[in-house]
Amino acid sequence: MIDFPYIQDICQYTSSKIIMLVADGLGGAPHPDTGKSELESARIPNLDKLAGISACGLTTPVFPGITPGSGPGHLSLFGYDPVKYLMGRGILEGLGIDIEINDGDIAARGNFCTVDGNGNLLDRRAGRIKSEYSIPLCEQLDTIEVPGLHVSIFPVQDYRFVALFRGDGLDQNITETDPQVTGVPPRAVQAILPQAQKTAEAVNLLISKAQELLSGRDVANMIMLRGFSKLPQLPDFGKSYSLNPAAIAAYPMYRGLAKVLGMNIIKTGITFRDEIDTIKKNISKHDFFYLHYKPADAAGEDGDFNAKVKALEELDSFIPEILDMNPDVLVVAGDHATPSIMASHGWQPVPLLIHSKLTDGEGIEAFDERNCSLGSIGRISATNVMFLSLAHAGKLTKFGP
Amino acid sequence: MIDFPYIQDICQYTSSKIIMLVADGLGGAPHPDTGKSELESARIPNLDKLAGISACGLTTPVFPGITPGSGPGHLSLFGYDPVKYLMGRGILEGLGIDIEINDGDIAARGNFCTVDGNGNLLDRRAGRIKSEYSIPLCEQLDTIEVPGLHVSIFPVQDYRFVALFRGDGLDQNITETDPQVTGVPPRAVQAILPQAQKTAEAVNLLISKAQELLSGRDVANMIMLRGFSKLPQLPDFGKSYSLNPAAIAAYPMYRGLAKVLGMNIIKTGITFRDEIDTIKKNISKHDFFYLHYKPADAAGEDGDFNAKVKALEELDSFIPEILDMNPDVLVVAGDHATPSIMASHGWQPVPLLIHSKLTDGEGIEAFDERNCSLGSIGRISATNVMFLSLAHAGKLTKFGP
Repeated sequence: MIDFPYIQDICQYTSSKIIMLVADGLGGAPHPDTGKSELESARIPNLDKLAGISACGLTTPVFPGITPGSGPGHLSLFGYDPVKYLMGRGILEGLGIDIEINDGDIAARGNFCTVDGNGNLLDRRAGRIKSEYSIPLCEQLDTIEVPGLHVSIFPVQDYRFVALFRGDGLDQNITETDPQVTGVPPRAVQAILPQAQKTAEAVNLLISKAQELLSGRDVANMIMLRGFSKLPQLPDFGKSYSLNPAAIAAYPMYRGLAKVLGMNIIKTGITFRDEIDTIKKNISKHDFFYLHYKPADAAGEDGDFNAKVKALEELDSFIPEILDMNPDVLVVAGDHATPSIMASHGWQPVPLLIHSKLTDGEGIEAFDERNCSLGSIGRISATNVMFLSLAHAGKLTKFGP
Repeated sequence: MIDFPYIQDICQYTSSKIIMLVADGLGGAPHPDTGKSELESARIPNLDKLAGISACGLTTPVFPGITPGSGPGHLSLFGYDPVKYLMGRGILEGLGIDIEINDGDIAARGNFCTVDGNGNLLDRRAGRIKSEYSIPLCEQLDTIEVPGLHVSIFPVQDYRFVALFRGDGLDQNITETDPQVTGVPPRAVQAILPQAQKTAEAVNLLISKAQELLSGRDVANMIMLRGFSKLPQLPDFGKSYSLNPAAIAAYPMYRGLAKVLGMNIIKTGITFRDEIDTIKKNISKHDFFYLHYKPADAAGEDGDFNAKVKALEELDSFIPEILDMNPDVLVVAGDHATPSIMASHGWQPVPLLIHSKLTDGEGIEAFDERNCSLGSIGRISATNVMFLSLAHAGKLTKFGP
């Protein structure tokens, strides 16, 4: 949680219901030809109307200027200090492919790569070999045995895989093997702390056995590992806020994130249509729903302004169905901006609206960056969104006498 | 740095160039006759036009209501927590007169004062004696010897001087001698921590020898010392942000500040015209330039509204030359407000603009307090300005997976 140790004391169970719709990469930036952002360009009558009867504002995920990954972006929205609770790349990659990770396990992100006869890197991504070639290689690697440990290799996509290390006394404080340049050999893993010595040796043994096994191949004849990490020790979301929370997300990484926070994961399909059907069926069973919408971010990352506009319009079309479920509080937020003109995540503040029986409008005419900057919530740290959501739901008592 | 330990991890070297123009005392407050601030009253067409194609906002140097000195004001803009990295008065005074201060040295701000026959203070500033009288007195004081230490006395201006203590094991945790009232004697220095005992004794010995040397004079027959301080241990600016930074400042104190942060100091003349010529000659040699403009602050401190307006207009006339150097990012910021109606530094938020290829305007029509409050950056802590500057320059990678 953020730096407010009394949150658990002032949270109370009530029957009121919160839906937090997280539109991934919601915020954007003006297109140079029109001066209008994706939200300003999209025809989103339902969101605009909703903004008109909501409290609006802008959220900063980490600090102004700092662009978050999906991990920090979501943790902030859920009220967790994203700097204190930084999640490792290996863990997030593992969560993204829905594998089971236990406390104490170490996950690493793996790459196939190509080296020359002297072991020097020719291609850090092995020509981006396709999954049909890499999956059998992962299966081979998965057979490698490292004494005292259980090592599993899971394919992700193309040249990428996850290596999972299970055993006693593992320590993630070891260096990465990718030198980030070609012409030199991949680095050996080194212990950063003395207690990581055993882990470093085990990982190096895996790598040398992998090299042996892959030798003789022209491409993808070596592997590199980075982002060694364990599951972070996070306060339980439901206990912290006195909620019985559920997560509905088509993409596995977001389910994984929610699972780490202790949310109940409800099985759903691969589209937002599926997600909406799932929440409808389960609306009576929980008092907090995290509902994730991915397409806006994906289009923004592709640098496709028009596709992001369409994705936002598609999201808009589901708003009436969400309102029909009569949540006491509906939050529409984003984990970060994904400006199409940057074709990547951005640091820009993200539009936010909170609709409850306490909000009946403040003259905001549209749901976009400019209009939300004029809203009553103002510009806040994303880590405060949960406080506001709980407050609007009547779930927070007074702090201090 | 502010409380973000990962900044070094996400900074990357690029060829892009940032110019940060710090207009000292930039912000102001409305004149009671016109209701317009200095910036609103000034004819600054170049800054107004630049604001129209930039991201705008307001910065808070420390906290709302807290008026910073030049030290905290600048440290914030450079991304250093101004509370954590408070620079002592003795050090800042020493930097201001361009003297060499080594690690371990203690600098103190000194005053000549006048005492009566019983040693009670008659005048804490010795009638504000002029430099022509105080410089020879400083030369006399400089001859005093304190066993085991090297003590140097440097005149500053009028009744003010700097005392520099060099030697092994000095500790700055000692009390000040100025009782802040007349009618009582100056206080003896006392050790606040046991390890400062030796330092306290040495300083008291200097003071008693000074009193002896000055006795017989009617005015300026005693000294007082305060602000005992060492050079702060600050993270290196260039290393922290992966920059090769340069500072161009006509006033020595700002060069001194930049030097403490590890910036490269480029020799320049005494006017802003000189500074502009200097940056033009050196623009290819660095990727970050701190360019300091002093006159706005000086006029504000004098309580001269019109002079501050003129100083801002003079600054405006240099903007085209700065833009002609084609920096990838141009930041125009202030270390604090200096409202002429207060004739002193103020706590008011300070206008900020950041111009880059990512900014093409957000409807801001003028560069002043009111218009900047409507900009997309909003009101931010000044400690976030470096993050935004680096982000606009494409020098920051994503935080977290």
